[in-house]
Amino acid sequence: MDTQTDTAVSPPARALSTAVILAAGRGTRMKSQLPKVMHPLAGQPMLRYLLDNAAQVFDRIVVVVGPGMGDVAALAAPHQVVVQVDRLGTGHAARQAEALFGDGDVAVLYGDNPLITPDTMRALLAQRRSGDTGLALLAMEPADPARYGRVVAHDGRVERIVEWADATPAQRAIRLCNAGVLCADAVDFRRWLDEINNDNAQGEYYLGDVVARAVADGRSVRAVVAPEDELRGINSRAELAQAEASVQARLRQAVMDGGTTLVAPETVFLCADTVLEPDTVVHPNVVFGPGVHVKSGAEIHAFSHVEGATVGPDAQIGPYARLRPGSDVGAKARVGNFVEIKATTLGAGAKASHLTYLGNATVGSGANIGAGTITCNYDGVFKHRTEIGADSFIGSDSVLVAPVRLGAGVITAAGSVITHDVPDDAMAVGRARQANKAGHAALFRERLKNRKERG
Amino acid sequence: MDTQTDTAVSPPARALSTAVILAAGRGTRMKSQLPKVMHPLAGQPMLRYLLDNAAQVFDRIVVVVGPGMGDVAALAAPHQVVVQVDRLGTGHAARQAEALFGDGDVAVLYGDNPLITPDTMRALLAQRRSGDTGLALLAMEPADPARYGRVVAHDGRVERIVEWADATPAQRAIRLCNAGVLCADAVDFRRWLDEINNDNAQGEYYLGDVVARAVADGRSVRAVVAPEDELRGINSRAELAQAEASVQARLRQAVMDGGTTLVAPETVFLCADTVLEPDTVVHPNVVFGPGVHVKSGAEIHAFSHVEGATVGPDAQIGPYARLRPGSDVGAKARVGNFVEIKATTLGAGAKASHLTYLGNATVGSGANIGAGTITCNYDGVFKHRTEIGADSFIGSDSVLVAPVRLGAGVITAAGSVITHDVPDDAMAVGRARQANKAGHAALFRERLKNRKERG
Amino acid sequence: MDTQTDTAVSPPARALSTAVILAAGRGTRMKSQLPKVMHPLAGQPMLRYLLDNAAQVFDRIVVVVGPGMGDVAALAAPHQVVVQVDRLGTGHAARQAEALFGDGDVAVLYGDNPLITPDTMRALLAQRRSGDTGLALLAMEPADPARYGRVVAHDGRVERIVEWADATPAQRAIRLCNAGVLCADAVDFRRWLDEINNDNAQGEYYLGDVVARAVADGRSVRAVVAPEDELRGINSRAELAQAEASVQARLRQAVMDGGTTLVAPETVFLCADTVLEPDTVVHPNVVFGPGVHVKSGAEIHAFSHVEGATVGPDAQIGPYARLRPGSDVGAKARVGNFVEIKATTLGAGAKASHLTYLGNATVGSGANIGAGTITCNYDGVFKHRTEIGADSFIGSDSVLVAPVRLGAGVITAAGSVITHDVPDDAMAVGRARQANKAGHAALFRERLKNRKERG
Repeated sequence: MDTQTDTAVSPPARALSTAVILAAGRGTRMKSQLPKVMHPLAGQPMLRYLLDNAAQVFDRIVVVVGPGMGDVAALAAPHQVVVQVDRLGTGHAARQAEALFGDGDVAVLYGDNPLITPDTMRALLAQRRSGDTGLALLAMEPADPARYGRVVAHDGRVERIVEWADATPAQRAIRLCNAGVLCADAVDFRRWLDEINNDNAQGEYYLGDVVARAVADGRSVRAVVAPEDELRGINSRAELAQAEASVQARLRQAVMDGGTTLVAPETVFLCADTVLEPDTVVHPNVVFGPGVHVKSGAEIHAFSHVEGATVGPDAQIGPYARLRPGSDVGAKARVGNFVEIKATTLGAGAKASHLTYLGNATVGSGANIGAGTITCNYDGVFKHRTEIGADSFIGSDSVLVAPVRLGAGVITAAGSVITHDVPDDAMAVGRARQANKAGHAALFRERLKNRKERG
Repeated sequence: MDTQTDTAVSPPARALSTAVILAAGRGTRMKSQLPKVMHPLAGQPMLRYLLDNAAQVFDRIVVVVGPGMGDVAALAAPHQVVVQVDRLGTGHAARQAEALFGDGDVAVLYGDNPLITPDTMRALLAQRRSGDTGLALLAMEPADPARYGRVVAHDGRVERIVEWADATPAQRAIRLCNAGVLCADAVDFRRWLDEINNDNAQGEYYLGDVVARAVADGRSVRAVVAPEDELRGINSRAELAQAEASVQARLRQAVMDGGTTLVAPETVFLCADTVLEPDTVVHPNVVFGPGVHVKSGAEIHAFSHVEGATVGPDAQIGPYARLRPGSDVGAKARVGNFVEIKATTLGAGAKASHLTYLGNATVGSGANIGAGTITCNYDGVFKHRTEIGADSFIGSDSVLVAPVRLGAGVITAAGSVITHDVPDDAMAVGRARQANKAGHAALFRERLKNRKERG
Repeated sequence: MDTQTDTAVSPPARALSTAVILAAGRGTRMKSQLPKVMHPLAGQPMLRYLLDNAAQVFDRIVVVVGPGMGDVAALAAPHQVVVQVDRLGTGHAARQAEALFGDGDVAVLYGDNPLITPDTMRALLAQRRSGDTGLALLAMEPADPARYGRVVAHDGRVERIVEWADATPAQRAIRLCNAGVLCADAVDFRRWLDEINNDNAQGEYYLGDVVARAVADGRSVRAVVAPEDELRGINSRAELAQAEASVQARLRQAVMDGGTTLVAPETVFLCADTVLEPDTVVHPNVVFGPGVHVKSGAEIHAFSHVEGATVGPDAQIGPYARLRPGSDVGAKARVGNFVEIKATTLGAGAKASHLTYLGNATVGSGANIGAGTITCNYDGVFKHRTEIGADSFIGSDSVLVAPVRLGAGVITAAGSVITHDVPDDAMAVGRARQANKAGHAALFRERLKNRKERG
């Protein structure tokens, strides 16, 4: 009884929804060895966006790849992957996944159309499930609709898709354009896919022909309109750059909305995962790679390049600072010009202001790293660590040959090569004494001059 | 007699005009601890622009700040400051300054509306003083007027301001929008401010209600139309960025009009006080901070960052040169890549071409600073000076430990640490001798390899 | 017989065509000492573009320069140059070249109008030679036609050119604008030029008056319409910047079409001769100077500055790498941050990753150049070479004093100054030993503190 009652009041069990992503295209217009969907946007392959967004909306994802696209398959994991061995068109590609359609709703998306948002995917699925809709499709009203197929609709029902080449002047005047993305019940979708043929100039099976099959079936076909910016495909490097610009614009707006000053937003390049807390300031010409978290009050000055790094509150970075993966910069610390740090922790208030390389190092709070300091962390095979204690003062042009440990309050004399550990509060000196040779500069110039005159 | 005659032909004495700047807003959409008007544009707080421009037009300036805004008050000095303790709207804010209105014309401006030019302010004041105008206001015809209140006018007289929310479709079709800035005689302005109330959803006193009071008084209200670009308010980081772009566009156009080549103007960031003489060339991606003067024939190459610096005629700067405050680069001198100079004078024709830090130094004319040279100017507490004589040749990777004085024509051997003064024409050497250990490199690799194999 | 037959079937011998380029203008609005046509676009003087493009279309080129413009004449070589001594207008300038018109078609172009493509020049010449055309001219339909003279035409025949100032409202409504470029048979052109006068406010001879002469002669005048982007003149630094943007946009599109990823095309600056092979990737903010060839699979990271360099396949450059002329980077080699190389060959797989200057050096394959390495290649007069053998390991902060030769498999100890050759597999050491002075850092701080307290 309990069980029956439960069943009675629950909504009817919905079959699992499936997103099929077509990613087998060679993308010849890209002129690339890399599969098209592996080209990155904001630091990650374009397919990644579609996988992440589809995973928020659909229960299952199936990716159709081409032969020899192991990298695409690896990226798609753990989702299911099928290989389209022969390339006979988009309809043929979708059919390769038929066995994995399940028995719920199926949407077919394109790997080179990666900026569709979860909201748009949800709207597509909701449209499919509402009223009498048999097939839902995504459409747009682009600023320049010229090259797209037109959606001929009447009273909200799509009657047909007309390719540009086949369209009458009246049809060409239609603003609503087909984006190619379709959603239908698995049973219908399979049947319609089985019905399409390749009686066309290219001898290919076109997914778009499913629309005509649905209409012929007497089913209601309805369009969901989404922004052009989401639906633009990427077929060339120029379109890739345009998509990158769209992604960057979204990311920049989001961080500004969150309370970050971007002095010149169009010159700041973000990654999808960049975290900039409120009241951070980013000056012109800054590039963020993956894995960055900048805390409140920190300032990133011009020409900085930051990836895999945490920047503490009120820290000052740059100009011309490069933070590489594993950088952890403490509160109020500063990394100055022509300074590179990698796998290095800088304590609170520590400073490395000029012309320095710190790799695999730990720098205590309040320490001052002089200009031209270099950690010699690599012996050709192994990487070694350098430890610098709090409030140490590393003289300019010091070389710290790792593994080496400098205690707290240590001073190294400018120009020293430090090969051994230095105890707390000791001063380490490793340099030659200066000798002045009177008149030798004049003699040297004289000799050069003579040599020059002799030719 | 003379005096009487003078009086007779002089214009009637005009009472002093007053600009009241409302700067008390918290700017919650900025998501910042910093008061909104302190956010910088082209390197100086936005309020600075309004203060400087209003000072060119009005006799007196009064700034209304919020409680705890000591930094705003400090910036406003020596102008008068009043504190709006309770935040009950713009009308309430303006009333805080009533006692300082004087008896001349009063204009109320907004601190977050900082790009109004002196010409526009003058036009506003002139309109107030012409004909029968009782109240003059600033209006604009924005490209996208959607969110602004509309100015309903007839035969040039403003009849009312209608908020967007309250507007009829016909009123919404009006292109003329209210910018909020008002100007009236002090006596009128005080009376109208006293008459407005807070009978509205927010319970605030709105400055804009003064317009209705003036109309009710039977006074002529007239609009002065100014460019949208001047009148756009700054309420978010995105609008701050947009205002920055406007300021930069003005500054870039001005330097190009003056005879400077900006190869890619959109990548060059200027400050309000940047001086670039005719026939200077600025390559892509250059950032100027405050206090820069670049003389004729000098060239600033890509990726340079210049602040507080004078660059002499025909000097070559960058790429990747950082000139910090106190830099004075002589005629035909050159500062090359990955070079930072600070509080340093470079004589005519002197060169510091690569990977160098010069701080608190004087470099004589014709001197050559080798790659990797570092002035060790800081001992942890004090800064010390380095002097390098004319025509000296500082060998690569020299460290100059200040205070230190090198005479004219000095040579330092590459890799030397210079801790003592060097007389004219002497050669200074401070480095160890090289020893070659035959086969030791092979042995070392062997040992590393063994260690690696052992794991 | 044979000879006669040949003559009969050959096309009639065409007299040589001539392009006359007017380059004498002072360009006062540029506010420059440099002749206007010498101002560069994408790294080469604007006149260079016109010379190169005209040379593809016309048999002969004549350049009209002003007095004292030796640099323009030198650039124009080996084409013929005539000097316009008096500056009496464009018509007068064209007349200076009359003696060199030859007896074929003559086109008059403007040196400050440098972006006309060969295709447009060909179309102009073809129009001149087709049908009854006596005079062909270039016209455009600019987005904002306001300031241009209008082309009044009827049934495809130009009736007159009306200057903006003289135009009726109906004429001002004409979209077709005059670009000033004319083409006619030499005999006609000479006659028309002789007929024009200087009865105008400026007292100048205007080339444009030739149109009226041709019409008065009853000759057919026909317009060839070309894109505004090609026909815009350069009269100010702002227009120079606009032309630079046009050139850059063309160059960027071309490399993307060729299979290069430009992550942010608007931040990459190319030269006319930049070669980027397919599957190269260029990150934001990269500047290319002349003479660059980047091979397939190579990646140029942000903030790099590359000129006169060959970059091998799969090499990694930057961020912040500067390759100067004579750089040859091998396959899979890498040049990292704050590294400058000049006249230097890096073998396959060699690495110079941080804070390094390599000048006049040869680095063997697989060698590793440690951070802070500097070749000391200049003695104040001569440049010397540094050779580094394959698989060598140069320790951090090494100074290599050229001329010097390091064999294969050499190791140098970090911080060494290398002044003598090093045999294969040897280890070279040239640095002082470290000494720790216990407690001296604490003592030093104490002394500084005391000094500070004493003021």
